[in-house]
Amino acid sequence: MDKKALYSLSYGVFMLSTKAGEKVNGCITNTCMQVANSPTRVAISVLNTNYTCDLIKQSGVFALSILDQTVTFETIKFFGFRSGRDVNKFEDLTPPVDENGVPYLGWKACALISCKVLSSQDLGSHTLFIAEVTDAKVLSENAPLTYADYQSKVKPKPEKKAEDKKIIGWRCKICNYVYEGSELPADFICPLCGHDAEDFEPVYEK
Amino acid sequence: MDKKALYSLSYGVFMLSTKAGEKVNGCITNTCMQVANSPTRVAISVLNTNYTCDLIKQSGVFALSILDQTVTFETIKFFGFRSGRDVNKFEDLTPPVDENGVPYLGWKACALISCKVLSSQDLGSHTLFIAEVTDAKVLSENAPLTYADYQSKVKPKPEKKAEDKKIIGWRCKICNYVYEGSELPADFICPLCGHDAEDFEPVYEK
Repeated sequence: MDKKALYSLSYGVFMLSTKAGEKVNGCITNTCMQVANSPTRVAISVLNTNYTCDLIKQSGVFALSILDQTVTFETIKFFGFRSGRDVNKFEDLTPPVDENGVPYLGWKACALISCKVLSSQDLGSHTLFIAEVTDAKVLSENAPLTYADYQSKVKPKPEKKAEDKKIIGWRCKICNYVYEGSELPADFICPLCGHDAEDFEPVYEK
Repeated sequence: MDKKALYSLSYGVFMLSTKAGEKVNGCITNTCMQVANSPTRVAISVLNTNYTCDLIKQSGVFALSILDQTVTFETIKFFGFRSGRDVNKFEDLTPPVDENGVPYLGWKACALISCKVLSSQDLGSHTLFIAEVTDAKVLSENAPLTYADYQSKVKPKPEKKAEDKKIIGWRCKICNYVYEGSELPADFICPLCGHDAEDFEPVYEK
């Protein structure tokens, strides 16, 4: 199987958020699709090790802010490159809140989809949630950011190969997570996005 | 709820095919995403009235040919605008066949994903299939066609409003299905893609 074939699947990029009691969190994800029209249903897939996944299981609600072409890497880093277990990402923000009490992005996003979970299924690395769309709002006229746009235009370019320099780490090409060390274990799985060692590239000393 | 917000979700465009006994069929769909990495799983959503949906339930296997930027409207029409109940779409073709015996597109497609169904769930208008990826192949270096590309570049442009002309039908903006008649019933659901009357535009007399 050539896993690169799966890179040809097209996706958007989303800030996925939830609120369970007093706990709020949001992360960056690329997996959401509408799965039924009548009634309106969406499906999302969320990495099991992700704090947002735990909180959605508790709360049964989530919001998808569909990121648009005005998004910069700063926003992706803010929500995507740290865990809500370590920091309250919303602490210094005053985001708008949807009808289920979930904060969403009123900026850098072209649409909001508010959802209540109907069912969930553990698929090993990820949990698939099927949800009722309880509300949907157009937030701007900006075009949505595609995952291909994120990879080609938003994400910083990898360093060029430098044969005379030492490898000091390995960067996940999917989400930019960095493993520190000169050798990446062959069975390594990215703790942020769940991709495997094949999807890592070397990080060289400065 | 503003259903237009859901138009901001990004998708690819696929020829979804299956073979159940001697029956083969393929249709055009835009809903597939990878839902787990280890093991590799995808989810697809298929309209319940679609013949391909019936056949996948029988066969438990399907292939996704990921359409690329070389696709023309002729290919979309060939697989998407007629039912396999009325015509054998593969009759005059000699397509390649994947490891599960399912025909796929060796042309106009940049990748093949071969799948075995693990579970299915009826969501009203559509069935969601979760499947194991049994094989995956890169077929070309062409960029995948996005659903937004299909809408803006591949699909024929709608006729301009002509106030002095009679309305003789209503065309689905999503899939181009045409309802014949001057008035579209308010509760009409597109038999091809399942979208409702809001997504239809008038067709004027010549």
